[in-house]
Amino acid sequence: MNIGLVGVGTVGSAVADILEKNKALIAARAGKEIRILKGVVKNIARKRELPFPVISNYKEITEDKEIDVVVELMGGVDAAYDVIKSALANKKAVITANKALLAYHRYDLQKLLNGAPFGFEASVAGGIPIIRALKEGLGANHIESIKGIINGTCNYMLTRMQAKRITFDQALKEAQGLGYAEADPSFDIGGFDAAHKLLILASLAYDIDAKPDDILIEGLGHLSDEDIEFAEEFGYTIKSLAIAKKVGSKVSLRVHPALVSKKSMIAKIDGVMNGISVVGDKVGETFYYGPGAGGEATASSVIADLIAIARGEQTPMLGFSSGGEGGITLAKKDDIESKYYLRVLVEDMAGVLARIAQVLANNNISIDTVLQRKKRVQKEWANLLLSTHIARETDINEAMREIATLGFVKSPPVMLRIDV
Amino acid sequence: MNIGLVGVGTVGSAVADILEKNKALIAARAGKEIRILKGVVKNIARKRELPFPVISNYKEITEDKEIDVVVELMGGVDAAYDVIKSALANKKAVITANKALLAYHRYDLQKLLNGAPFGFEASVAGGIPIIRALKEGLGANHIESIKGIINGTCNYMLTRMQAKRITFDQALKEAQGLGYAEADPSFDIGGFDAAHKLLILASLAYDIDAKPDDILIEGLGHLSDEDIEFAEEFGYTIKSLAIAKKVGSKVSLRVHPALVSKKSMIAKIDGVMNGISVVGDKVGETFYYGPGAGGEATASSVIADLIAIARGEQTPMLGFSSGGEGGITLAKKDDIESKYYLRVLVEDMAGVLARIAQVLANNNISIDTVLQRKKRVQKEWANLLLSTHIARETDINEAMREIATLGFVKSPPVMLRIDV
Repeated sequence: MNIGLVGVGTVGSAVADILEKNKALIAARAGKEIRILKGVVKNIARKRELPFPVISNYKEITEDKEIDVVVELMGGVDAAYDVIKSALANKKAVITANKALLAYHRYDLQKLLNGAPFGFEASVAGGIPIIRALKEGLGANHIESIKGIINGTCNYMLTRMQAKRITFDQALKEAQGLGYAEADPSFDIGGFDAAHKLLILASLAYDIDAKPDDILIEGLGHLSDEDIEFAEEFGYTIKSLAIAKKVGSKVSLRVHPALVSKKSMIAKIDGVMNGISVVGDKVGETFYYGPGAGGEATASSVIADLIAIARGEQTPMLGFSSGGEGGITLAKKDDIESKYYLRVLVEDMAGVLARIAQVLANNNISIDTVLQRKKRVQKEWANLLLSTHIARETDINEAMREIATLGFVKSPPVMLRIDV
Repeated sequence: MNIGLVGVGTVGSAVADILEKNKALIAARAGKEIRILKGVVKNIARKRELPFPVISNYKEITEDKEIDVVVELMGGVDAAYDVIKSALANKKAVITANKALLAYHRYDLQKLLNGAPFGFEASVAGGIPIIRALKEGLGANHIESIKGIINGTCNYMLTRMQAKRITFDQALKEAQGLGYAEADPSFDIGGFDAAHKLLILASLAYDIDAKPDDILIEGLGHLSDEDIEFAEEFGYTIKSLAIAKKVGSKVSLRVHPALVSKKSMIAKIDGVMNGISVVGDKVGETFYYGPGAGGEATASSVIADLIAIARGEQTPMLGFSSGGEGGITLAKKDDIESKYYLRVLVEDMAGVLARIAQVLANNNISIDTVLQRKKRVQKEWANLLLSTHIARETDINEAMREIATLGFVKSPPVMLRIDV
């Protein structure tokens, strides 16, 4: 089977390397040899040690009759979309690791397939075969929820902030020093990378065609040392979660930091590792863990797709031959429900709790537990800490606005969601 | 797609139930409706609430031209083997959850397939899609190790013994009361159930045709409260592990209790849950967790195989189209290597440690750490606790025999393997 590689960076080089080093094994599993015929690179003048020729025009791959599979590893949305459209127009099988492209165009691509195999195991959670688990292994189940730690940058930073009590800025600097965060880290720490991956998983579970703008995305930016400390005291770990949750016929999709029970499997994922908990109505909870990034781990998933194509496996791209989940739609952001953790810095005087409780009650929010603590720096100020029962986003947002206007409230109140 | 169910017990009934309750979803994923035409039961007189007729002669299923897939859920080795041979002779696709059958006859069955699809996702770790992970998701990798908690009975008992400091007998009684252990629990706590599953996984990873007798199997029987307590002090949890480990071109396969670092993912699996860590040479560690037993969880995997067959997926039964891993063979039991924990009850007198260290050194075993503690009951006796560096089974066994004969040794020494 002959492949053309569009993009020969970290992942592309690792694909080439593994196909060479594990050649006999991969041929034994695939039933045939898999060869890279050529690769597309931006800078053709740069010297490289590759066992195949490089070119600059992708059409020399997508239109080459010798090539069976086009592997798109260039990244970016529009240009990659063009490459894949050209590949499909020429009846090639396609493999991509491009989560941004899929976040926007997975349903467009599904329409263009015309029976061509299309693999994207590498697009979510690197080396963890989570796409296969959802498309195949859990196929008998209505998926009740997906909860994932699918951004290694955020998880590394949160792990360090909690284990070592370093600040957000220190953790970011550390992550950048280790190559876990980009110079401009906003795509990761803003939650957008995880949102792209979540949208892909949600299509496999619910056949929902949502776009990034449709869903709730909240980054790590507002996490303070204080909240991390208080969460710990409540028995929680703070993790940045990507969540799909079905309630009735509505599915909420969201990415945000959350207080997670220390006893859950998801709380046990440290550092840059990824992990995804999937609850099916019949199987119960299953959980998948592994490296979410890195050249070799991601290439491992690309080659899994190559082996599947070589074997002639044919599964519907997004897991549904027809019909989807039937009547399931995306919940509006305002209607998302959660438990909440609130921290309000107040003047330490009588009646404060009653007044805040009143605002919450007026917005249909009932308090679960109250824990008040003195703020250390200024003796007359106190941190009022609350957790709520299940409430709606629109209500909590309105309550937060009202609380901020109260005279005894000293800084904008902090809200974090509690994972339930 | 029409199926015949051979065996309508807990799992069979759950398959029927899920096919009915999640019918539209499963048809959307499979691309066609999946119907049970009939079921084979032992006692045809017993009243059942089933949406299909029951019969007693399996040939009315395996020879029925209307039936596309035979699902074998009767259990047992020889009788089930006959059913499946008859199904294959009649060109049916086959699905089985029968780990004992596969432990003995997977390679015989592979020869009989003649191109027929053969699914066995349900045979290992219930609802966890570990067969697919090894056959497909990790296909690019040489598998360096598989470490699994794949017997819920043992894990439940060990969890309780460690969390609640109850005895082996109390834990067993509890497990039996909850339906987690059979009246005769020897198949589970003797390690044989886990060994059957390990042999299946080892074929997917290494194409090794071993039988239960070929591999090291050690049950929970000899675990004492003392060792559980001491393990805790060393920073370990005791788990019953099924391990496949490749060293050079040799793979060791074994089931035994082991001291596991509390920091590993595998140590975090509590109660009846299952979990499997798989290390690939390229992807690194991936980890899979979920329910290892139960009607619905197991049925979830049976139906995953049904969906795959309906979709026309076709993967080689044991993951290799040809050739296997190439030159990999089973390590002899005597040649298996591990670190060891040793506990020797000795007279508390000078020279004891030196004498034991001498025996170990004579057998090529070097000591890693020594921790001696007074045994509480009798003041003149002490428990000598050691951990070793990597050593060979044959050497540790010989050393244990020699230590047992020493005059100052008060009871047969205890040896447990340390997971590395």
